[in-house]
Parts: sequence; C-alpha cells; structure tokens
Amino acid sequence: MARISIINNIFKDDLGNINFLGKIGISILIFLSVYFITKIVNKVIDKTILNRKSLSTIESTNRIITMTQTIKRIVKYVLLFFALVISLDMFGVNTASLIATLGIGGFALTFGAQSLVKDMITGFFILIENQYSVGDYVQIGSKEGIVEELGIRITKIRDFTGELHIIPNGSITEVTNKTRGGMRALVKVGVSYEDDLDHVLSVLNKVADELKNDEKVIEGPTVLGVTQLGSYSVEISIVAKTIPMEQWAVERNLRKRIKEEFEKEGIEIPYQKIVVLGGEKS
Amino acid sequence: MARISIINNIFKDDLGNINFLGKIGISILIFLSVYFITKIVNKVIDKTILNRKSLSTIESTNRIITMTQTIKRIVKYVLLFFALVISLDMFGVNTASLIATLGIGGFALTFGAQSLVKDMITGFFILIENQYSVGDYVQIGSKEGIVEELGIRITKIRDFTGELHIIPNGSITEVTNKTRGGMRALVKVGVSYEDDLDHVLSVLNKVADELKNDEKVIEGPTVLGVTQLGSYSVEISIVAKTIPMEQWAVERNLRKRIKEEFEKEGIEIPYQKIVVLGGEKS
Amino acid sequence: MARISIINNIFKDDLGNINFLGKIGISILIFLSVYFITKIVNKVIDKTILNRKSLSTIESTNRIITMTQTIKRIVKYVLLFFALVISLDMFGVNTASLIATLGIGGFALTFGAQSLVKDMITGFFILIENQYSVGDYVQIGSKEGIVEELGIRITKIRDFTGELHIIPNGSITEVTNKTRGGMRALVKVGVSYEDDLDHVLSVLNKVADELKNDEKVIEGPTVLGVTQLGSYSVEISIVAKTIPMEQWAVERNLRKRIKEEFEKEGIEIPYQKIVVLGGEKS
Amino acid sequence: MARISIINNIFKDDLGNINFLGKIGISILIFLSVYFITKIVNKVIDKTILNRKSLSTIESTNRIITMTQTIKRIVKYVLLFFALVISLDMFGVNTASLIATLGIGGFALTFGAQSLVKDMITGFFILIENQYSVGDYVQIGSKEGIVEELGIRITKIRDFTGELHIIPNGSITEVTNKTRGGMRALVKVGVSYEDDLDHVLSVLNKVADELKNDEKVIEGPTVLGVTQLGSYSVEISIVAKTIPMEQWAVERNLRKRIKEEFEKEGIEIPYQKIVVLGGEKS
Amino acid sequence: MARISIINNIFKDDLGNINFLGKIGISILIFLSVYFITKIVNKVIDKTILNRKSLSTIESTNRIITMTQTIKRIVKYVLLFFALVISLDMFGVNTASLIATLGIGGFALTFGAQSLVKDMITGFFILIENQYSVGDYVQIGSKEGIVEELGIRITKIRDFTGELHIIPNGSITEVTNKTRGGMRALVKVGVSYEDDLDHVLSVLNKVADELKNDEKVIEGPTVLGVTQLGSYSVEISIVAKTIPMEQWAVERNLRKRIKEEFEKEGIEIPYQKIVVLGGEKS
Amino acid sequence: MARISIINNIFKDDLGNINFLGKIGISILIFLSVYFITKIVNKVIDKTILNRKSLSTIESTNRIITMTQTIKRIVKYVLLFFALVISLDMFGVNTASLIATLGIGGFALTFGAQSLVKDMITGFFILIENQYSVGDYVQIGSKEGIVEELGIRITKIRDFTGELHIIPNGSITEVTNKTRGGMRALVKVGVSYEDDLDHVLSVLNKVADELKNDEKVIEGPTVLGVTQLGSYSVEISIVAKTIPMEQWAVERNLRKRIKEEFEKEGIEIPYQKIVVLGGEKS
Amino acid sequence: MARISIINNIFKDDLGNINFLGKIGISILIFLSVYFITKIVNKVIDKTILNRKSLSTIESTNRIITMTQTIKRIVKYVLLFFALVISLDMFGVNTASLIATLGIGGFALTFGAQSLVKDMITGFFILIENQYSVGDYVQIGSKEGIVEELGIRITKIRDFTGELHIIPNGSITEVTNKTRGGMRALVKVGVSYEDDLDHVLSVLNKVADELKNDEKVIEGPTVLGVTQLGSYSVEISIVAKTIPMEQWAVERNLRKRIKEEFEKEGIEIPYQKIVVLGGEKS
Repeated sequence: MARISIINNIFKDDLGNINFLGKIGISILIFLSVYFITKIVNKVIDKTILNRKSLSTIESTNRIITMTQTIKRIVKYVLLFFALVISLDMFGVNTASLIATLGIGGFALTFGAQSLVKDMITGFFILIENQYSVGDYVQIGSKEGIVEELGIRITKIRDFTGELHIIPNGSITEVTNKTRGGMRALVKVGVSYEDDLDHVLSVLNKVADELKNDEKVIEGPTVLGVTQLGSYSVEISIVAKTIPMEQWAVERNLRKRIKEEFEKEGIEIPYQKIVVLGGEKS
Repeated sequence: MARISIINNIFKDDLGNINFLGKIGISILIFLSVYFITKIVNKVIDKTILNRKSLSTIESTNRIITMTQTIKRIVKYVLLFFALVISLDMFGVNTASLIATLGIGGFALTFGAQSLVKDMITGFFILIENQYSVGDYVQIGSKEGIVEELGIRITKIRDFTGELHIIPNGSITEVTNKTRGGMRALVKVGVSYEDDLDHVLSVLNKVADELKNDEKVIEGPTVLGVTQLGSYSVEISIVAKTIPMEQWAVERNLRKRIKEEFEKEGIEIPYQKIVVLGGEKS
Repeated sequence: MARISIINNIFKDDLGNINFLGKIGISILIFLSVYFITKIVNKVIDKTILNRKSLSTIESTNRIITMTQTIKRIVKYVLLFFALVISLDMFGVNTASLIATLGIGGFALTFGAQSLVKDMITGFFILIENQYSVGDYVQIGSKEGIVEELGIRITKIRDFTGELHIIPNGSITEVTNKTRGGMRALVKVGVSYEDDLDHVLSVLNKVADELKNDEKVIEGPTVLGVTQLGSYSVEISIVAKTIPMEQWAVERNLRKRIKEEFEKEGIEIPYQKIVVLGGEKS
Repeated sequence: MARISIINNIFKDDLGNINFLGKIGISILIFLSVYFITKIVNKVIDKTILNRKSLSTIESTNRIITMTQTIKRIVKYVLLFFALVISLDMFGVNTASLIATLGIGGFALTFGAQSLVKDMITGFFILIENQYSVGDYVQIGSKEGIVEELGIRITKIRDFTGELHIIPNGSITEVTNKTRGGMRALVKVGVSYEDDLDHVLSVLNKVADELKNDEKVIEGPTVLGVTQLGSYSVEISIVAKTIPMEQWAVERNLRKRIKEEFEKEGIEIPYQKIVVLGGEKS
Repeated sequence: MARISIINNIFKDDLGNINFLGKIGISILIFLSVYFITKIVNKVIDKTILNRKSLSTIESTNRIITMTQTIKRIVKYVLLFFALVISLDMFGVNTASLIATLGIGGFALTFGAQSLVKDMITGFFILIENQYSVGDYVQIGSKEGIVEELGIRITKIRDFTGELHIIPNGSITEVTNKTRGGMRALVKVGVSYEDDLDHVLSVLNKVADELKNDEKVIEGPTVLGVTQLGSYSVEISIVAKTIPMEQWAVERNLRKRIKEEFEKEGIEIPYQKIVVLGGEKS
Repeated sequence: MARISIINNIFKDDLGNINFLGKIGISILIFLSVYFITKIVNKVIDKTILNRKSLSTIESTNRIITMTQTIKRIVKYVLLFFALVISLDMFGVNTASLIATLGIGGFALTFGAQSLVKDMITGFFILIENQYSVGDYVQIGSKEGIVEELGIRITKIRDFTGELHIIPNGSITEVTNKTRGGMRALVKVGVSYEDDLDHVLSVLNKVADELKNDEKVIEGPTVLGVTQLGSYSVEISIVAKTIPMEQWAVERNLRKRIKEEFEKEGIEIPYQKIVVLGGEKS
Repeated sequence: MARISIINNIFKDDLGNINFLGKIGISILIFLSVYFITKIVNKVIDKTILNRKSLSTIESTNRIITMTQTIKRIVKYVLLFFALVISLDMFGVNTASLIATLGIGGFALTFGAQSLVKDMITGFFILIENQYSVGDYVQIGSKEGIVEELGIRITKIRDFTGELHIIPNGSITEVTNKTRGGMRALVKVGVSYEDDLDHVLSVLNKVADELKNDEKVIEGPTVLGVTQLGSYSVEISIVAKTIPMEQWAVERNLRKRIKEEFEKEGIEIPYQKIVVLGGEKS
C-alpha cells in the first residue's frame, strides 16, 4: 500500500487528482498500447486472410496483399484517433463536441458513401470466395463476357461484341460462371409429322455417334427424344457436354451434320404448313 | 456490519472511494465472470442448435459445427470487450469516447455490410430449416439447377446447361425445391374438331394404361379431358406423377407413344386451318 | 417519521447514501418484482391469444402455444436483463457502457435481421387471422399450390407440378385463397357469324340445364350471352359456381358436352376466316 | 412564505431534499393526474372520431368503436408507463437503463413491425374516409372483386372467379371503387369499308333508341361515331351509362341486338381481308 | 444592482436557488410567452398562405382555411407541450424520461405513419401550386379521369368508365393535366402505294379546310405529310388544335369526312397486301 | 490581471458564477454576433451563386434571386434560434428538452418531407447547371414536351398532344434535351431483293443531294448503305443532321421525295412476299 | 514540478480552474494547430490524388484539381468549426445545443441531399478509375451516345439522334464503354434449305477473304457456320473485329457484298415459305 501511495504522490496533486505529469505519463502509455495492439492485430489479419487456398495465382495474391494493407491502415488510424481522443480528454479538452461533430459529418457521408463501402466488401468476398477470376466467361445481371479486371471496387467485363462493361461490385448479386466445368450443347430439330419417327431417331443417333470422338465433346451427344409436338413439326432434342466455351462450335457442327444427313436420308425439316379450306362468302 | 466495514477499509481509501487495489480485484472478478458466462452460453448454444433432426447428414453437421463455433467466438469477444470497457472505466479512462468512436465506425460499416449479415442469417436458416441440400434440383429466382454447394454466405447452383450460378443467400427469398416428393408430367395434345372425341379419349386412355407400369411413374397417367377449345384444335391433357427428375423422360415417352398410336388409329394432330373466302376487290 | 428514520439507519451509511446491505435488499426486491410481473404478463398473454375462435384445429392450437411460449420467454429474459442492469448499476458498475455496447451490436444485427423479425410477425398474423391453413389451395405472389406447412418463419406450398415452393412469411403480402367458398367455372365458346344466335343460345341453355344437377355444381351453369364480337366468331360465355377445386373438372365437362351437342345440332365452331381479294401486281 | 416553509419541513429532509414521505405523496399525485388526463383524452377522442357522418352503418360503427377503444388503451398504458418511470426515478432507481433497454428492443421491433403499424393506420383511414364498404365492387392493385371484410389490418375481396384475395391494408395505395355512381357500357363494332357509313349509323342509332328505356340504363346509349379507321374495318363505338354492376349485361344486350339488326339490314361485320397479288418467283 | 438583489431575495432561497414561488412565477411567464408566440405565428401563417392567387374558387379557399387551422393547432399544442416540459422540469420532475418515452413511441409511429405525413404535404402543395382542381381531366400514374374531390390526404378521380379511383396524394408524382390549354387531335390515315400522293394530299387539305371553321377547333387541321412508309400503305397524318375534351369528337369527325371524301375521289384505304410467289415443293 | 478581476466582479456573483447582469450582457453580445455573421454569410452566398454565367436570361436570374433569398432567410432563422437557445440556457431554462422536443418533431417531419427537400435541391441544380430552360423540348422519364415552367419544386412540360405534365423535380433523374445542337433525321426504306442495289443507291444519293441545300438541314443527307437484309426487303438508311425540332419535317420531306423518285425510276417498295408451296394433305 | 506550478498560477484561478487568460491562450493554440493540421492534410491529399496515371489529359487534370480544392476547403471548414466549438465551450457557452441544433438540421438536409453526395462520390470514382472520358461512345442504362461532358455531378451524353442526355452520376451503375479495344461486326444471313451448304460457305468465305485487307478490320471476317436451323432458312453468321465505331460500316459493307455475290452465284436469300395443304370444309 505504501508503494502505491508514493506513486500517487508523484502523479497526483493535493486534491488527489492526477496532475499534469501523470497525465503525460498515461498518454505515453496509451500510445504505446496502441502500437502493440496494432502489431497484434496485423499478425491476426495476416494469419486469417493470407493462409488461404484461393491464393493460387500471383495476381490475386497481390490484390489481397493490397487489401489487407488497406485494412491494417484503417485499424491503425482508428486506434490512433482513439488514443488522441482519450489523451485530449484527460487534459480537459471537450472531446464530446469533437466526436459529435465528426459523427454528424460521418453520418452525412455514410448515407452517400454506403454504396462505396458495399462495393468494397462485396469485391473482397468475390476474391476470397474465388467466384470468378480474370479470363473467366461470366454473366452478371444482363451483361456477359470475359472478365478483364477484377478490382476492389469494380469488375470489368469484355463482351463478345467487344464492348467493355464496367460494373460496381456492390451491384453484383447473382453471378453465373460459364467456365467452371463442362458446358451443355443443345440442338433442337423439327421433323415433319409425316416422317417415320424411328427412322429419324436412328439417323440422329448415327450423327451423335460420329461426334462422340470429337475432342471438344466431354460427354457424347445424346438424342433425348420428342420434346414437343408442335403445330407443324415434331421437335427432337440432342444434347452434349463439351469443354467450356466450345459449346457453340459443337452446336454449329451438329446442326451442319444433321442437315446434311437429313438431306441424304430424305428427312424433311418442314416449312410451316397450313390447311386452307375453301368457302364461299355468304 | 463489522465484516463489511473491514472489507471496506482494505479496498477503499480515506474518502470512501474504492482504491487501486480494490479496482484490480473487481477487474479480476469481472474477467472471471466473463469466463464462466462464456462457458454457460456455449453449453446453451450447443444444446439449442446441435440436437436437431436436420443434422442427418455428416456434411451439414460439419457446417453447423463451424457456425456455432463462429457464434461462440463472437459472444466471447463481445463479453471480453465489455469487461475491458468496465475495467478501463474504473481506472478513470474515458470509455464513452471509445464507445462513441466505435459506434460511428460501426454504423458506417453496418450500412455497407448489412447485406453480409443478412446473407449469413438467411444461410443459417436455410440450413436449419433444411430448405434444400447439396444434390437437390432447385429454382431460386430465375435460376434453376442442382445445388453444388450450400455455404454460409453463398449457394452454388449448377444449371442444366453446365453454367454455375453463385447466389448470395441474402438475395434468396422464394425457393422452389423440385426433388421433394413426386413430380408431375403433363402432356397437352391437340386433335382435329372433325375427330370423334370419344374415340380419341379411348386411344389416349390405352396409351396411359400402357405407361402405368413404368417404374418412373408413381401415379399412373390420367387423361384429364378437354382443356381447351382452340381456334383449330381440341386440346386434351394427360397428367402423371413421376419420381423426381424423371418427369421430362416420362413426358417425352408419352409424346412418342401418342404420336405412334394416333398414326395407327388415323387420328389427326391438325395443322393450322384457315377458311379462305373468295371475294372480288371493289 | 421516526420509523422511516430507523429504516434509513439500517440501510444507509453516515453520508445518507444507501449502504451495501440496503443495496442487496433492493436487488432482491427487484428480482422478486420481476418474478411477479412475469407471472402477470403470462396470464395476460394467455387470455389475449389463446381464447380465440381460430383455434379450431389441434394443429394450429399447438403452433400458437409454441408461439406464446416464445413470447413469454422473450418477456422473461428482457425483464431479467433489466433487473440485472439496475442491480449492477446500484453497486457502481458502469452499465451505460454495457448498454451502449449491446446497443451498437443490436443495431448492427437489427439491420441484417429485420427480415427475420418481419417473417415471424407476419407468420403470427397469418395464423391468428386464419388467412389459410394446411391443405388450402392458395396463390401467393406468382406461386400457387396446396399449403403443406405453415411455419413461424416460412410457408411451404406444393405446386400442381409437384414442386415445393418455400416462401418466407415476410415476403407474403397479398394472399389468394381458392378454397374458401364456391369457385367459378367459366367456358367461352365461339360460334360463326353465319349461325343463328337464338338457336345457339337455346342449345347452350339445354347443355347448361343438363349440368344443373351435377353434384360438383353449386349454382347451375348460366349462359351469359354475347361477350365479344370477334374478328371471325361471336363469343358466348357460360358460367357456373362449383365446389372448390372442382371448377376445372366442371369446365372440362362443359366443353366436352358443348362440342358434342354442337356437332349434333350442326353448329360450327369456326376456324379463322380470311377474305382474300384478287389483285394484279402493278 | 411561511406556509410554504412548513410544507417544506414535512416533505423535505435536513439537506433540503424531498424525503421518502414527500416522494410517495408526489407519486400519488402523478398517478392521479394520469387518471384525469386519461379521462380527458378519452372524451376528446370520442368527440373527434365518433361524431362523423361515415358512421351510417351499424357494422362500421362497431368497428370504429373497437378502434377508438384500442387507441384509448394505448394512451392509458403509455401514460401509466410514464408515471411509473417518474416515480421509480424519484426513489433512486436508474430508469435511464430501463428506457435504453426498451429503446433498443423497441427499435428492433419497429423495424420488423413497421408494416403492421402501416396496415392499421391505412385501415383506419379507409374506414374514416369511407373509401369502400362491405359489398362494394372494388379494384385494388391487380385484384378486383366484392369486398367481403374490411378489417383493421386486412381487407378481404371475393373475386368473380370465387377466389378470396386477402390484402394487408398497408399495401393498398390506389383503390378503384366500381359501385359509386353510374358505370359506362362501351361496345365497339367494326363495319366493312364498303358499307354506307350513314346507313350504318342510322341502324345503330335505332338500336340505341330501343335500349333507352331499359331500366338498367341511366343515360341512353349514344353512337359516338368513327373511332378508328382500321386495317380492314371502320370501328364505330356506342356508349351508355348504366346502374353499377349492370354494365356487362347492357353490353351483352347491345352486342346481341346489333348483330341481329345488322343481319336484317345486310350490314357486314367484316372478316380480315387481304389482297393477294400474283407473282412469279424469279 | 440592488434591485436585482431584492428580486433575488424573493424568488431565491438561502442557497441562491430559485424557490417555489419563483418557479411558479417563471412558469406563468412561460405560458404567457407561449400565448403571445402562438398569436404571432398564426398571423404569419395567415399572411403567408392566405394571400395567394390560387384562392380563386370558394371551394379551395375553404379547404386552405381548414388546413391552416390544422397547422395552427399543431403549433399551439407543440408550444404548450414544450412549456409544460420546462415547467415540470423546474419543479424537479425528470422530464428526460418523459421525452425519451415519447421519442421511442414517436419513432415507432413515424415509421408507420410517414406515408400519412407525405400524403398531407403533397396534398398541400398540389393545392397551393394549383396543379389541378375539381372538374379537370387529369392522368395520375396509370389512372385517368375527371377530378371529383381533392382532399388533404386523397384525390378522387372519376374514370370515363364511371369507376371511381381513390389515390393517396403521397403516391402522386407525375400529374398530366389535360384541360389546361388546347388539346391536339391527331388522325393517321394510310393510302395505297399506287395512289397519286399529290392528289391524296390535295383531298386531305380540302377536308382540313372544311373543318377550319368548326367551333371546337382552335388551330385549323394541318396535313403534316408522309409520316411513314409502311409495309403496304403510305401513312399521312393530319393534326388540329381543339378546345379541351373535344379532341376525340374532332378526330371522329375528321375520320368520317376523310372516309367519305376518299370514297368520292376513288382513293383507296388499302387492305393488307401480300405478294404470293408460286413454287413447287422439292 | 487586475483589470480582468474587476470585470469579473461586476459580472460575477460571490461564488464566482456569472450573475444576471453578466448574462444579459453576454446575450446581447451573442445576438450582435448573429447579426454580423448573417451579414457575412449573405455576402458569401451572393458571391458564390449570383456571379454565374447561367444567369443569361432575366427569368432565370429572378428565380435564382428568389432562391438565394430563401436560403438567406433559413440561415438567419437558424442562427437566431441558436442564439435564443444559448441565451435561455444561461438563464437556467432547460433547453435540452426544447431541442429534444423539436428533434422528435423534426424527425417525424423529415421522414414525410424528404421528397420536398429533394425536389428543391434537384430543382436548384437543374437551374444552376442549366440542364434545360423554358422553351426547350425535353424528355423526362416517359414524358416529353416543351418546358413551360421551371419552378423550385416542379417542372411543367407541354406535350405535343397539348397535355400538361407536372413533374416534381426530385423525381427527375435522367433528362434528355432535344434542342441543344443539331438533331438527326433518319429514314429507313426497304427495296426488293430483285432490284439492282447500285441503281437504288444512286437514286437515293440523287434525292439526298437535292435536299442538301434545304435550310432546315445542317449536314446534308447521307445514304448509309444496307442496314438490314430483311425477310422480304433490303433495308437502306438515309441520315441527315437538321436544326432542332425540324427533324420530323425533314424526314417527312425525304419520304415523299423518295417515294416519288422510286415511282419515276421504277424501283419497288416491296409488299410482304411469301412463297407458297403446293402440297396434298396426307 | 515547480515550473509547472508557476504556469499553473498564471493560467489558473484560486480554485485551480483555468482562468480567462489561460482560456484565451489555449484557444490560440487550438487555432494554430488547426492551421498546421490543414497544411499537412492538404499535402497528403495532393500526394494521394494528384500522382496518378489517369491524369493523362489536361482536361481531367483540371477537373481533379478543382475537386481536391473542394475537398481541402471542406476539411478546413470542418476543422475551423471544431476549433470554434472547443473554444466557445471553454468560455462556458453551451455548445451541446449548438451541435444538437446543427445535427437536426444536418439530418434533415442529409435525407434530402444524399443523392447529391452520392452523385459527387460516384463522379469522383468515374474520373479516378478512368471509366470513360470525353469523346468515348458509352452506354449508361438505356441511353447511349458520345460523352460530351464529364462533370462532378452529371454526365452529358450526345445520342446518335442528336439528343443530349443529362445523367446524374449517382444514378450510374453499370457503364458499357464501346471505344476501348476492337468492336465486333456481326452479320447473320439466311439461305434456303434447298441450297448446297458447302457451296454457300465457300462463297461466304470468299467474301470474307476480300474484306480481310480492309483497314477498318482488325481481325478478318470469319464464317462461323450454321447458327440456326430456322423455320424456312438456314442462318449462317459471319463475324469480324473492327476498329471502334466502324463496326456498323463494316457490317453494311459485308451485307452489300454478300447480296451481290449471292446474286452472282445464284444463291437464294429465301422469302418466308409456307406449305398450303388443300382441304374441303366438312
């Protein structure tokens, strides 16, 4: 108890309040704590974020390093600001008004800037969850194309037509990635009601068999069967699983082969047919 | 009363305020309480969440364990933060500014991050309520496909076309699960107005009877009757209940059989018919 | 006044402040009050909610009991928390920071969880107001089907196609219940402009009379009259009131009978008619 | 001044603060004031709401009585709560934490329950403003039908098809009431370009004159004239004002009469006409 | 300085605080100020709102008087409430809790009632800005008709079909007023490609000249020229400016005259023309 | 130091607090400061807003003067209110409750009135940025027409049909101004597949050359070339830059000239062509 | 310790509180700090924003300089306001009410002005991220055209039709820039089912080869193959990569060449074909 009293004498004035010297001491202590807390927080952030498997590519690694540095910097400034406020407070400055002033301003900014914060949080998760990476063919909302850039705030997509779509990450909800796993090629062909269905199916099966060995095809084309009894044609569907981005080529190939084979076998791809009934105007 | 006075003497200074030693003691007590409260809360969480029937699969069990651990960790940090604030407060640090600073920051973050919180809460309920699990064929909004991954924040759906839809849980409202219970196969066929309706119905009933024993069919195809008097055809519907994901195969099969049987029986699936009346341009 | 002074002496120290013993006493009093208030509130809740006519079925009774228990539990914990805060406060713990901490956390959660709260409140009212119950055929937004489960947070609807729609109660606004009262069967039939309208109406009336005794029909089919002068047909509507879920069967039956009777009577259901005027290309 | 001093002596202790007895006295005074204020408020509510002309029907009177009772009860509980808080406060209980606790909870609830409050406020105004009453034929959003129930929170509408639409009052914005005042019956008829327009108009005028004495018609059918020069017909419109809900019957009657009269007079309701030009494929 | 001391003596007790008598005096002063401030505010409101030119009709004057009275009453009650709070505060009642209680309640109400406040503010501006008045033909959103009632909270519109649309003012954004200034009558007529364009235009100009003296026409019908080269007709537009609500009558008249004149002059309003090329099915 | 002491003696009482006289003095100082600050702020506003180039027209100058006066008045009242609060505060009135009361009311109003504030801010920017002025032909959302009035809160647009659209400025986002710079006249004409493309293009070029000297045309009509290979015609586009609001007249002129020239040169504007293949119903 | 005591004596009064002189001193210190902090912040802003590669053009450099000056000014005023509040506070003025007053006003403004803040933040990022610059051909929402002005609050786009679209930056989410990188020219041509597909493809390849050397073409036109088996034609697509804004010219050129070459080679671009089956009306 005596020791504590001595400490008290040095840092406290006659009325038992902490004196100027004591206040300076405490301030130094606070800033030191902030220094060490920052160190610890940085370590924790590094461990949590950087040891992830999604860091396969160098590019995304670089981006995540940038991001963690941003986070660290924010943490550092917040802690420093906090230490400053407490120290000022001890020396009798009315920090309540400081905080209130900042609060009002911050509130005003927040309302306008919330989409900015949302952009960055969503961008962060797209990266961490590896939803898509540069070079993938994706569809986001009504836009689709190849990802050219995956930034903290925006994603750039190059359309098939060459147009460059710039999309803020925060307005991305549903993402459709078309380069993860095999794609489906689907061709629908209509034959006449007068044609023999079994003959048609055997011809289509033959075409399908031919394409089974195509290197673009993962799972050989399958003739599904009658998918619609239309108003003037019987619709038959053929489906195949292909390597990504080659589904359209496979479909074009299938269509050309079917047309050629049908011509050879005399199977009609029918024009629209109408029965016209004679009548006399009364 | 005497005993209390003695305690008071040790932990209080001359002015009756709690002294430094007393403050340290109380701090230790507070941190101890936090320790025990955390223990109790963990037990309660385990009991509430883990004893549920939805934990049938190992996969979902693992995920729920991860989630409860996250919840426990949040509770622990909140309580520790609270203990720290009270202790600092006792030693004369102005914690109001600390809380205010954090409050403003937290508010700014909340606005941007609310969709993140919403994602996780919704994800939690989808899991607990067992709305769908990996392998189910579901429709969420305008996207449908087989669930490939059901995460805390996102759900991944593999489309029939092979495309991978990545949907944040928070943007999921209505879910349509197409693998819970039998599916309905529905075929609509149009016959000519000139055909004998009773004959047509008996032929369709014959086809339906044939497919009654198909293993894919749960509840035999039923001929519903005349569902529309169209502009050039009488539409008749046939309906069947099938095992999930096989409704399309059953429909294709029904269509093929109907077409074949109609050909055999001479029933016309009519082309569009128009009555053309002669006239002379005045 | 003397008596009060004595009480004051026991529970107050020299400076007139309430002493430790007094504080403990008050704490006990507070917790006792909480106990009794909880009892009273429970009684009030039971009386208000459980004595309602919507509790006709055992199933819904069970669900409401679960819900009132949830409400009671929330009330109990809120009151206990409140008692705790007041007690801690008396013993000099800074509860303001506790509340502020919880407030910030609560605010963050509220933003993310508001749809959860909304789900439960709406679910509660659907039950109490008996908007629909398990087995009803309802339409909610763009989905319709038979209600399979009516939970606190979600409603499950089984579609005609066998698909299971899972809808959070909070996203339910307009509900259309198709099993409360008789349904309307409506058949529109087009006849040729050349046909005698009075003859057509008498034939349709005959068909309507036939079906008047059908047990599925509540209010006999009525021939409304000419509802449209179309481009090649005169549209006549027949309407009937049927028992719920049988309107489609009645419509199918009406259509079949009309077609048969029209054939017998030589009334034409006209194909599209076009007048083709000759011309010579200038 | 002396009298005031005496009062002061009884209710105040040595330090000039109000003593225990004084506090109890003030508490009683507060609760008495609450009692009288409640009485006055109730009187004011009764006068404001109940003396209105919209209270024509017994049914709506009953509902409004229920509603004012609800309002009175809320006022009573709020005032009691307020009195309780002030009294507790005087006896040294920290009511700030009580209010803060309730505030956080209230905030959380408000976010989820705002649609509930909105439902009731809108329902209240629909009743007071007499927008529609039970039995009216109304259209709300995309739903229309006869109002079956007009509740505090929901409105029930019975569709023509027999379906029961349940709509929360809060989601009602634009209401279309189809039973307030006469309705308009509108028939559009197309005649051939080759027909004599003056002859057609005189025939239509004759039909219109016939229906002028129909008891369902308020303002005799008027032939408006040529409302469109279509691609193969000249469209002429006839309009009439009828008693509510009978506009469709009047329209059906008009159509039947026009068709019959046109047949008699040899006026053509034309089929679609196309000029086909011969050509030789090059 | 002496005088002030004397006043101090009467209204202050020994410790220099204002005593009971002083408090009552101040309370009276406050209530008196409220009385005079109310008077002044009323005068200001009267001057600002009532001296406006939009007060042309008695009806709208009455409504604005009602509204200003409502505003005055609100101001009065707010000021009284404020005076009450300050007075209570002086007598030692904890008004903070009163305000907090009201604040929470007010917040809850505000969320639900914001559309109500919005309705009244918008209604106020529609009146002041004279956007439309009773009897005008307006379009609001998808509804149009004649304004039957323009209330504080709702606007009632009578449709051409006789339906009564009830629209809350707050959901009104864009208003289209069709009775302010002359309306445009627009008739589009198609002529054959084979017809002589100059002849057609001269005939149309003749018809236009005839109608120039029609009292319903403000600015004589003008033949605009070729507005489309359609697939089988050349479209020519005629436009006229008419007095409000008579544009449809003028259009009907124009159409009738054009048809008659074209018949006389042998100008064809062409049917759809198709060139049919012969071919032989391969 | 002595001087300061004297001042202190006059304005402070025995306990060192500022006395009544001192308070009055400070109040006067505060109100004086408000007076001078108001002066300065007015000067700043005048300089910032009034020295702008958009003040070209007298009309808009007047409006901006009105607006700056409104802003000045708001600033003045806010500062006066603030001075009043500080003064009252010094005399011991509890201004916290005053502010809180106003705060709650203000909050309630803000929610309802935010669209009003938004209207005025947007209106202010439309004026300052000179987005459009009275007489311009603009499109706002789905409405277009000539701007008749550009007010602080609303914009009035006169449609081509004579309808007056009243649009709150706050609901204006994208504005399309059609009178800033030259407009484009675009005519698409279809020619037969059988026609000689080079001949057609030379004829069109001749027509384009003719119109090059039209005073309404800024940049001579250019024949773009084949813009579509349609199902029965080759579409060719001609484009010209015209003075604003004359693009439709130029288009009408171009169409008339093309039709005439094509007739002269024997170039066909083709009717829809169909190849009809004979067939025998099986 | 002695030195500190002396300082204390000068700036503190007898009760140990800081005296008037001390307060003035501190005020000066505060304003000095604000001055230096402003200097530092300005330096930091300059370094962060101005050293960026997007500052390639003089125009955008100017705009960014304007923006950083705006930011600097805001920072200066905020700091000055803060210094003022602290100083006033020291002299005993109740600044809480000042801040509260401003807070309420600021809140009211924020709600109305949030779109303004959002406009400027988004505009800032569009500039910094170089999403588009003046002269680019972009599509924003449903509007497209050449960027005429890229302001802090609005973007002006000149449409192809000459219309000027004025879009607030805050309502811009997805931007499509059509002048970054090569554009795709795509021509789809339909040939008859009767034509020899290999012959058609060779002709198209010849046309494609011709255009390979066109300076507008970056990547020579490629014949993709059969992209659709239509109802009366086989659709073949040709695709090319062109320099920006020249894709339409290349497409027009391709169409003209294909038509000419097909005519030469006798390949048919087919009209719609219909099979008409004879029939006799029963």
